[in-house]
Amino acid sequence: MHVTDLPTPSLLLDKARLTANVDRMLKKAESLGVALRPHLKTAKSAAVGTLATDKLRYGITVSTLKEASYFADHGFLDITYAVGIVPAKLDEAAHLMDRGVELKIITDSPDVARAVAAHGAPFDLLAEIDCGDHRGGVPADGEELMEIAAAFRTDAEPGQAPRLAGVLTHAGHSYGVNSIAEIEKIAEEERLAVVGAAERLRAAGHQIDIVSAGSTPTALFSKDATGLTEYRPGVFVFFDLDQQSRGVCDRSDIAVSVLASVIGHNKAAGKILLDSGGLALSKDRGANAFRPEVGYGEVCDAETAEPVGGLYVSGVSQEHGHVAVTDPAAYEKLPVGSKVRILPNHACMTAAAYDAYGILEGTEVVGTWDRVNGW
Amino acid sequence: MHVTDLPTPSLLLDKARLTANVDRMLKKAESLGVALRPHLKTAKSAAVGTLATDKLRYGITVSTLKEASYFADHGFLDITYAVGIVPAKLDEAAHLMDRGVELKIITDSPDVARAVAAHGAPFDLLAEIDCGDHRGGVPADGEELMEIAAAFRTDAEPGQAPRLAGVLTHAGHSYGVNSIAEIEKIAEEERLAVVGAAERLRAAGHQIDIVSAGSTPTALFSKDATGLTEYRPGVFVFFDLDQQSRGVCDRSDIAVSVLASVIGHNKAAGKILLDSGGLALSKDRGANAFRPEVGYGEVCDAETAEPVGGLYVSGVSQEHGHVAVTDPAAYEKLPVGSKVRILPNHACMTAAAYDAYGILEGTEVVGTWDRVNGW
Repeated sequence: MHVTDLPTPSLLLDKARLTANVDRMLKKAESLGVALRPHLKTAKSAAVGTLATDKLRYGITVSTLKEASYFADHGFLDITYAVGIVPAKLDEAAHLMDRGVELKIITDSPDVARAVAAHGAPFDLLAEIDCGDHRGGVPADGEELMEIAAAFRTDAEPGQAPRLAGVLTHAGHSYGVNSIAEIEKIAEEERLAVVGAAERLRAAGHQIDIVSAGSTPTALFSKDATGLTEYRPGVFVFFDLDQQSRGVCDRSDIAVSVLASVIGHNKAAGKILLDSGGLALSKDRGANAFRPEVGYGEVCDAETAEPVGGLYVSGVSQEHGHVAVTDPAAYEKLPVGSKVRILPNHACMTAAAYDAYGILEGTEVVGTWDRVNGW
Repeated sequence: MHVTDLPTPSLLLDKARLTANVDRMLKKAESLGVALRPHLKTAKSAAVGTLATDKLRYGITVSTLKEASYFADHGFLDITYAVGIVPAKLDEAAHLMDRGVELKIITDSPDVARAVAAHGAPFDLLAEIDCGDHRGGVPADGEELMEIAAAFRTDAEPGQAPRLAGVLTHAGHSYGVNSIAEIEKIAEEERLAVVGAAERLRAAGHQIDIVSAGSTPTALFSKDATGLTEYRPGVFVFFDLDQQSRGVCDRSDIAVSVLASVIGHNKAAGKILLDSGGLALSKDRGANAFRPEVGYGEVCDAETAEPVGGLYVSGVSQEHGHVAVTDPAAYEKLPVGSKVRILPNHACMTAAAYDAYGILEGTEVVGTWDRVNGW
């Protein structure tokens, strides 16, 4: 099937670009001597996970327990659930372990740590460290980290008793800069924070096996991974305009896009209307920090995936994408009924609206890969 | 089951509020002598559609052909697909008619109108009119409207040949004001535009059966529906902070919410973290035009659904909701592991992340209603 034979809106995944993106990250991790534990919150796809783990189906990160269950169904048995757990979810987590999953859970709360220790299942807990993102995490040098650790016996054996198995951090602030020098600086701060936390815990007698860091920007541009055991980048499998706007990738690296139809010309208002709006693209505007012109996505040719000069999704309602037109030649280039590809602002948000990817080799649709959404 | 026994994030639907919202709109339409053809793009639920059509399961609006198919499966046989059609979707539309659906499709493109006329199936087409929203639609007094009409025979019989069955408009700009006087003004402009278009087409010999208007704000606050045959409001079934911020509803009318767990306290950063982020709430910020403080949603008590004084989802990442804290008492009020309800910024966008509603009577979960997503 040809790409333009798909219904619209459809989520497209360019296999050659995906493979190149994965290779780039696998090589980077190998060069620094750390494992790659890809964060599959972006792809939510077993097929992508298989590629991104170099076919080992081992060592992945997820953002929901539903993802964990889906990946376990597909043979992935070493899973880190990298969103703070709450006591009410411990039974579900323990059930995954009963299914053979080596599950790692995280928290930055001493209260939760005590609940994990008291639950009865032999959880591997990672303490979440705030390395400057100021989302979740405790400071590497603060009292709370030691309080979390104090919930566990230092002689707990893996798989036998709940234990503090490591530390984990997320340098989300690396998405907020657009110079490689700044990313390198954040990568080093990230490393020092989490390695420092690990050292403090080891000094207190804990066996810290896992020292986990590495967002897509910091993993790609870090120069040193000393003391780290793994990287957990996510969006690198697909990239998007958000990453492109920060200089982390080129536009030609972006592997996912949305196939859309032109459904109207409102010449009086200077607009082309698409059948892909807020639900099909998301309302994420992350890329706008450094590329305000892109709005909700960049309009590309459906065949070549090259930009249709200067056209962007400037506004969205639920099912309508609005493309601002300044040069009326655009109406002839994109007649009503024609198709375009939209490069997404933020791949993780956009892909979540779809149950599946149409897999492309060039302009041929060679298959369909499923994904898991929801909670 | 008690509301707080549900996993998080979950989509909640308060049945009493839903019923009251539907009653309000049914009475309004009846008082003006127009039919209510609810836009089920918001609810995407057969159970809600049954309520919103006063149990008649007749006369609904949808935003995707997948919705049309889903509602047809549930016995709804009079469906308007109110997003501009493209020629490539006509076969799928014709298939719905073969299944017994009285389908109405729309366009604002003379080219598409000609393709509809040429297809062979006896489509009922509505011409989309721009009444001031400047999304889709042709001007009511322009040449394009007559070009669309000219694609069809004026003596076409319903169900026998493709025909121009009516006109339709959407006053989306009624969401952009927050005074009832301005909404009333837009409602009258909307009516005059679409009724004027119908009159022009009738003067040209077409049998115009359908004159369709009425967004949630304009339907609720219009004073005159002379010449209209129906209203197509959508979000009224649930309401949201966007509508509340415009004065269209009260906060206590908002029928959908998201149950979330507190997963962390980042006291140094002044934040409570929730397990409900951009995917669970959407990144819509429509309410911020008139209530900038609400961010991505208002934090309410999980039991009472009343606001937890002055707490809002101030930021989101994929699975994290960030609640800015100014009064440290909030940490005690909402310990890690506790649950809250989030009132959504924009119900249509938020609900689309879920496959089902947990139906509430007070704080009891009395059932689950499915919904249809995707395309």
